[in-house]
Amino acid sequence: MGKMYEVSNKYNNYKEYQREFTEVGRSIPRLDGPAKVTGKVQYTDDLVLPRMAYGKILRSPHAHANIKSIDYSEALKLDGVLAVITGEDCPIPYGIVPHNANEHALAVGKVRNWGEGVAAVAALDEATAEKALELIKVEYEVLEAIVDPREAVKRDDLRIHENHPNNIAYEGTQVYGDPEKALAESDFIIEKEFYSSYVNHGFIETQSAISDFDPNTGKLHMYATCQVPHYTHQQLAKVLEMPMNKIRITVPLIGGGFGGKGVASQADFCSALLSRKIGKPVKITYERSEVFATNNGRHPCYMKFKMGFDKDGKITAVDFNNLMDGGAYSGWGIVVLFYTASMVHIPYMVPNVKFDGKRVFTNKPTCGAHRGLGGVQPRFAMEQMLDEAAEHFGMSPYAIRKLNAVESGYTAKSMMYVPHSEYKKCLDEAVEKSGFLEKQGKLPYGKGIGISGGYYISGTSYTLYLSYKPHTVATIKIDEENGVTLFCGATDIGQGVDTVMAQMAAETLGVKTEDVKIIPRDTEISTFDLGTFASRLTFATGWAIRQAAEKINAELFPVAASILKCRGDEIAVKDGYFYSIYEREGKKGRNREVLWTDVVTMYIESNGPLTCSGQFTPPRRKGIQQGGNIGHSPTFGFSAQVAEVDIDLETGKVNVVKITEAGDCGQPINPMSVEGQVHGSIQMGLGQALYEEMQIAPDGRFLNPSLHDYKMPTIRDMPKIDANIVEAYDPSAPYGGKESGEGPIQPTAPAIFNAVYDAIGVRFTEMPLTPEKVLNAIKAQKAK
Amino acid sequence: MGKMYEVSNKYNNYKEYQREFTEVGRSIPRLDGPAKVTGKVQYTDDLVLPRMAYGKILRSPHAHANIKSIDYSEALKLDGVLAVITGEDCPIPYGIVPHNANEHALAVGKVRNWGEGVAAVAALDEATAEKALELIKVEYEVLEAIVDPREAVKRDDLRIHENHPNNIAYEGTQVYGDPEKALAESDFIIEKEFYSSYVNHGFIETQSAISDFDPNTGKLHMYATCQVPHYTHQQLAKVLEMPMNKIRITVPLIGGGFGGKGVASQADFCSALLSRKIGKPVKITYERSEVFATNNGRHPCYMKFKMGFDKDGKITAVDFNNLMDGGAYSGWGIVVLFYTASMVHIPYMVPNVKFDGKRVFTNKPTCGAHRGLGGVQPRFAMEQMLDEAAEHFGMSPYAIRKLNAVESGYTAKSMMYVPHSEYKKCLDEAVEKSGFLEKQGKLPYGKGIGISGGYYISGTSYTLYLSYKPHTVATIKIDEENGVTLFCGATDIGQGVDTVMAQMAAETLGVKTEDVKIIPRDTEISTFDLGTFASRLTFATGWAIRQAAEKINAELFPVAASILKCRGDEIAVKDGYFYSIYEREGKKGRNREVLWTDVVTMYIESNGPLTCSGQFTPPRRKGIQQGGNIGHSPTFGFSAQVAEVDIDLETGKVNVVKITEAGDCGQPINPMSVEGQVHGSIQMGLGQALYEEMQIAPDGRFLNPSLHDYKMPTIRDMPKIDANIVEAYDPSAPYGGKESGEGPIQPTAPAIFNAVYDAIGVRFTEMPLTPEKVLNAIKAQKAK
Repeated sequence: MGKMYEVSNKYNNYKEYQREFTEVGRSIPRLDGPAKVTGKVQYTDDLVLPRMAYGKILRSPHAHANIKSIDYSEALKLDGVLAVITGEDCPIPYGIVPHNANEHALAVGKVRNWGEGVAAVAALDEATAEKALELIKVEYEVLEAIVDPREAVKRDDLRIHENHPNNIAYEGTQVYGDPEKALAESDFIIEKEFYSSYVNHGFIETQSAISDFDPNTGKLHMYATCQVPHYTHQQLAKVLEMPMNKIRITVPLIGGGFGGKGVASQADFCSALLSRKIGKPVKITYERSEVFATNNGRHPCYMKFKMGFDKDGKITAVDFNNLMDGGAYSGWGIVVLFYTASMVHIPYMVPNVKFDGKRVFTNKPTCGAHRGLGGVQPRFAMEQMLDEAAEHFGMSPYAIRKLNAVESGYTAKSMMYVPHSEYKKCLDEAVEKSGFLEKQGKLPYGKGIGISGGYYISGTSYTLYLSYKPHTVATIKIDEENGVTLFCGATDIGQGVDTVMAQMAAETLGVKTEDVKIIPRDTEISTFDLGTFASRLTFATGWAIRQAAEKINAELFPVAASILKCRGDEIAVKDGYFYSIYEREGKKGRNREVLWTDVVTMYIESNGPLTCSGQFTPPRRKGIQQGGNIGHSPTFGFSAQVAEVDIDLETGKVNVVKITEAGDCGQPINPMSVEGQVHGSIQMGLGQALYEEMQIAPDGRFLNPSLHDYKMPTIRDMPKIDANIVEAYDPSAPYGGKESGEGPIQPTAPAIFNAVYDAIGVRFTEMPLTPEKVLNAIKAQKAK
Repeated sequence: MGKMYEVSNKYNNYKEYQREFTEVGRSIPRLDGPAKVTGKVQYTDDLVLPRMAYGKILRSPHAHANIKSIDYSEALKLDGVLAVITGEDCPIPYGIVPHNANEHALAVGKVRNWGEGVAAVAALDEATAEKALELIKVEYEVLEAIVDPREAVKRDDLRIHENHPNNIAYEGTQVYGDPEKALAESDFIIEKEFYSSYVNHGFIETQSAISDFDPNTGKLHMYATCQVPHYTHQQLAKVLEMPMNKIRITVPLIGGGFGGKGVASQADFCSALLSRKIGKPVKITYERSEVFATNNGRHPCYMKFKMGFDKDGKITAVDFNNLMDGGAYSGWGIVVLFYTASMVHIPYMVPNVKFDGKRVFTNKPTCGAHRGLGGVQPRFAMEQMLDEAAEHFGMSPYAIRKLNAVESGYTAKSMMYVPHSEYKKCLDEAVEKSGFLEKQGKLPYGKGIGISGGYYISGTSYTLYLSYKPHTVATIKIDEENGVTLFCGATDIGQGVDTVMAQMAAETLGVKTEDVKIIPRDTEISTFDLGTFASRLTFATGWAIRQAAEKINAELFPVAASILKCRGDEIAVKDGYFYSIYEREGKKGRNREVLWTDVVTMYIESNGPLTCSGQFTPPRRKGIQQGGNIGHSPTFGFSAQVAEVDIDLETGKVNVVKITEAGDCGQPINPMSVEGQVHGSIQMGLGQALYEEMQIAPDGRFLNPSLHDYKMPTIRDMPKIDANIVEAYDPSAPYGGKESGEGPIQPTAPAIFNAVYDAIGVRFTEMPLTPEKVLNAIKAQKAK
């Protein structure tokens, strides 16, 4: 039977028929869309379990302080209060990167940022829990707070973590080629400093967790807003000292993650600890201020660059010194630090690279994973320096990018391998669609146009702990009653992966997308998946789904062939039919057909159940593990953007009028969904470029922990967006498709900054570009 | 690898080590027990979906009437009423046996029993729905009602269903051997009539359904109290004219079924129709009176028997004429009718059998599937006739039973094959434990002791529709995080199958029962299973689970062998360890060991996911399909009971003092659970024998549709029970185990009736044996 399928499979061969997709490539509205917009679905906070209690977390008003004592006796006396926990109840540290674990569910001995949790209460209702918080007396010994990482590295006398001299969380150096020599021999060198700001994701749904510990079975069932249920599962097991198989995590729909829900939250741990203490379910839902207090947003970076070019404008070397503000704890920090290093190597050929990086602790809410992590900061710098070099060489910013752009098959000095790139097409299309060449340098003062490129990983090679197991598993169950049911632990955080997975399964199986049922993620019911990060899902789950679906086909094809009374190599499946095909004089035609459901019935009647699993393990290349190449990914997505700005010369406000985007996501699985990702990326990039900044006072107090005071762009601030998908097909990807959710955030800020330069002739190096800064620059120009 | 396992499997071979179970045979308290008794779990009626509406069904006050018109315009005007449906909304008939489908979600044109649904309302709350029912005006043309099947067969002029002359739903004749000749040649013949009464299951949880139709996707998700989700799934698809793959049924915990939830309920259909109409979830939960109105309980039977014996007391022939009161609709009727025929053939050898059966429609709530269906009625008769014959021959009732009892390997005239029987052991043990031989015939007037036997099928060979597919599928998923997850659609209706399934999986996998997670039944997530009926689960799912687990072992054993550095035939798995064993001078010993979890990790690291499915298809024997052998089952369970009674001679009340039971359930998977089933069976048998009867007035009105008026035995009415499990192992069963939940109800009533005869010397032939009947008999004795 296997052999028969090998032959028949020729007609489902993606190399031969790669463009002949039926379900892949369809702009299908999200399968869960109508239920979401009609309010039918339930997010975590919508759930109410029987006998459920409500938890609240008491948070520190100080950014740096020793906890001398906590007295919660009065709180416990309050009617309706069921339990109080403190750091004493959770002495075991956790962290998504296991060997850097230094976080606690509640502060142990010391608080290191404003808003750190110090105690938690469970009560019969939220109001009582809140009242109880006021009755908890915490005696603090307030310490000096350090909020600037440039200061922190100098203050070995004031260590935020005792075991980290000079407050350095991690540091590292990477050298590829001979950057020193290359710079010395360069025709033109730019040496410049940049700063990227302290921003939060701003997802709409705050973190929420309901823990339901059953004292009879010793099992914990948690419902949580969780991008990475697998890692949360691991860390809960560690902190609670319970075996993983006694913990189950169900992830309801998630209202946005962007990396911010890529760590276990204190709501997760505290609800679990409280539930175990009282033997009842406990729900904890964050206030917005708690989202800011626990942050996990983008790392501010103080970046020093030297970038060299030869006489033709080709990049010779990059020397990048990155001082990264980590905030109070480790989180994803080490990953982000080394991603910033990796991000230098692509999308332009850089033959010589030096990287010096430090991630430094400060008394601020911890920084972590944030859409396009590690990429946004160096891209902001490098894309502006490219423009500066283009000006020096008298080239257009477009030309210098084309000259240096990587192509399919490129291997970076860091051994990062690019199986496929249509980045040049992206540049071409963005330039053509925007009329960049006609406008750049030719617009009146105050109006400008700027270009930038970007790229991002599409998957990761790493599990964050030692393991060689598959990164994802998909199981497809076929039965007469339900048709196709797909089990996969991939977490839809609003990006639409459920729809995309259904499309991919439907494509290979030859059924309609709408007929594929996705079983929601749940660590017990679903199959294994690492989680939603590193833009890995379409690529990784795609392979697992395709493998599972091909195994199903291998079972069904012989049955179909026997019904259609033809040879195995004369058969194909599409649109809910198996059909026999003939080939005559080089032309193929469709012959007899049989319903897919009839073949399934026939198969099951004679063979019984039909369930197959597929898996994905990232490809490993010799030598690729060395040298700290944490940024390595199976493939990469690319994006080019042209921003047009119109600066209000009276106020300094930068109005972004239009952004023209052209992306290489390979074969788009769902073009409508790709466009949605592009719009979202641009919104987020725009926010960081112009508006957003978490403001921390010198003593570490958080000044704007609300969406009233933390300014995100709304629909009224959005430019016109022209999103384009360039023709592309990545042969290393399961259906030719790769990421589109993180690459497109990279170019937005530098494109805007380059447009501002085009408008008023001033280069800015710090985000966000507030009206004040622009106005001051304009005034300074006039003063000259 | 397969080969390696074949060798190693020798050490898990059930023939060699069949008694060496670790998990099977443990009296493990129900895994779901603590959560149930602490109120942690949620039954269907406990669930509340967002925006949920409430439905109520308007029921007919007449037993037989044409519906002239329904005017619900006033109801629709009531504030909060969302929709009303009538029979016009559900013209398609349904029925669990497809070719007999004649039921409707709501009456179409005519009502045929008191309480039949005629309209249903959805409203914002229950009170409004109830008020709306009062505003619906139904104009009836009341017809004469027939409530006695003996009358109904004579009234071709008054057909309850137009296409059923003489109100005969089905009739059939079976002849095996030459019963006429055998009776003519018999040494002793008993000719007698019996009546078994009209009883309901009396489960505590009334039927409930929540239907959630999503108008955007066209999908219906129903939560329902459903023993047979697969059949409900089929019938919903039919009535709603929707494809099955657009319907999903989730079955929460069920508070008792006993066959009563073995059909789709009107709550299921009406909630679905209403939900589809209003696009919101609708919950309908029955009142107790609605449970009675929709019944599905045991068929009253008017039974005429001729039973012949040879001079030694051996049974020569049985001629059984069964007139069965079916109530208003078909339901499980045809199955029950032919089960009563099959039940004559075992547990005693009957070389010649004649069966004439009719199931007749009457204007009463439909009869259907009820614990021990088809067996309780003829057993009630035959076990009393056996006693009468014993008396005639001067034998003890024990001796005549032993003489006629079937043994392992017996094939009945009807081709029913008994792979294994320890029925004789049951008789021995019940007699010995109760001191029957010392007491019988020797107790003072008013005190008596009686014996009876019984048996029941343990599975079915039939799907009720044409199909050769497996009857059940089990899928086991093994992963590092969760250990063992078992997917199986088998429905735990309170009988404890979840725990038993976990034990069986644990046994073969070599882990602890508590570590096996059972995924609750859901037509989408679970694997296929026919449903909970015919005592099929332990046997059928047992085979599927064992097959799945052995496939898992076939994958894991080679990995374990490579770690333990031994040959494949030197390895075994138990208690969470793989271990190597040595055999020296005929003795086996345990050598090195490795944690099961470590082997799993090693396997997954190198091979990826581990998910295997097993299935069960009943064995088919040549010729077995002919002759209407609907009672055929892969194997059978046996039970013998001795009842001791103490009759209150002043009131006639029969006090059952003690019941001694001995059962052959093969290898008990969970002895504690077996004992629970025996207690429950005896409670139910006792209720039918002495107390329970649904009372119908001559015009078809239901006189006692409440648990105040319908008298079930409570804990205070229960006798002392001595339940024993005889040593047995059924080699045809996956772990040697077979049914224990329906066989033990068979002997209870006849054992009590035989004890009453022993006490006062009067044979009664009608259930229930009320004090009035007994007192009248005592008075008649005195009058003589």
